[in-house]
Amino acid sequence: MLILLRHGESIWNAADRFAGWTDIPLSEVGRKEAARSGALIAYAGLRPDVVHTSLLRRAISTAAIALDVAERHWIPVRRTWRLNERHYGALEGQHREDVRARFGDEQFTAWRRSYSVAPPPAERTAAGVPAGESLEDVLIRLLPYWETAVAADLSAGRTVLVVTHGNVLRALISHLEGIPPQDIRTITVPTGEPFGYELTEDLHPVGARRYLSTGRRTS
Amino acid sequence: MLILLRHGESIWNAADRFAGWTDIPLSEVGRKEAARSGALIAYAGLRPDVVHTSLLRRAISTAAIALDVAERHWIPVRRTWRLNERHYGALEGQHREDVRARFGDEQFTAWRRSYSVAPPPAERTAAGVPAGESLEDVLIRLLPYWETAVAADLSAGRTVLVVTHGNVLRALISHLEGIPPQDIRTITVPTGEPFGYELTEDLHPVGARRYLSTGRRTS
Repeated sequence: MLILLRHGESIWNAADRFAGWTDIPLSEVGRKEAARSGALIAYAGLRPDVVHTSLLRRAISTAAIALDVAERHWIPVRRTWRLNERHYGALEGQHREDVRARFGDEQFTAWRRSYSVAPPPAERTAAGVPAGESLEDVLIRLLPYWETAVAADLSAGRTVLVVTHGNVLRALISHLEGIPPQDIRTITVPTGEPFGYELTEDLHPVGARRYLSTGRRTS
Repeated sequence: MLILLRHGESIWNAADRFAGWTDIPLSEVGRKEAARSGALIAYAGLRPDVVHTSLLRRAISTAAIALDVAERHWIPVRRTWRLNERHYGALEGQHREDVRARFGDEQFTAWRRSYSVAPPPAERTAAGVPAGESLEDVLIRLLPYWETAVAADLSAGRTVLVVTHGNVLRALISHLEGIPPQDIRTITVPTGEPFGYELTEDLHPVGARRYLSTGRRTS
């Protein structure tokens, strides 16, 4: 069983700014969303055996709060940069509405929702850090981790919780559900709403994703 | 470099009750102690590369809060029951002053501070859970983890943070510093006060433990 969770609202989600790899903490609303996520997981009768997170504190804190509420705070933790949010390049820190006003709706939406369009590159990056990523870039660096670390836990029969970011989840959903690149812009993932997949033995989903808050299956 | 930290004040520390394996959360004071611990670690210029915790939420939360403050929230996490507090048997949940009044100072101190006296056993325990442990029992179940998982991280040159419990730290200090059983009752470890050891290549401490808040070496 796979449970996926986008982190709770961060301070920059609330301020409508692009975060990407900038390490922004949860807002108070985000901490409450994280606690509610844990309650939803417990109420659904799910007991994560292991949690995977990015290296960013909005995902790390969300996992810690949710698992504490679900009484699963003691499970093994695995962290990887491969679950980090898409690097938003020069857009990081910018207000979304400023970007939209400056570059127009079409460019704005392409940067946010398309499969292959990368943001304008950051002027300075640390060694080993990308200057900006398209959703395709995210999927390419995500898959080696999905196919080894996460797959190993799933194949061992574990209930696996993955706490990560909006664009990472969009990439993973498109991969799991076989959604073609041109349709990926329709996928959005709300903060603090855990959803699950039942998977076959070869890790293909049985049916669509199911949000724990509603039980509703999408797509 | 080894950094050891007893969790911040728990609700039962504040209420003067024996906790042991009972999974009690931090008090508000304890959360502040945890944040201060992280600030002390960062101010000392220490950068933990990996953290080891028990399976109990007072240690898990202390580690999470401290590492977030120290900007080391993203490091690998390892958890084990071998770092759990001593199991306090039938004393768990009891108020310390009630136990002292009922059994007398000498028995009370023997249960709390001696090396080999175990508490009265718990009436019911889950499978695989001890019914009560002496400090010696704690050391016996701690050492296999110390000598493998923690030692491997130290031998690899990592700065290792271990967030655990008062009696586990008493056992570990006695082991590292070669303190004989009859002198162990003099060792106490305050909550939320990180301390460090420099270690030789074969993991013997160079000098005594040093508290980060004071720089003072003890013993």
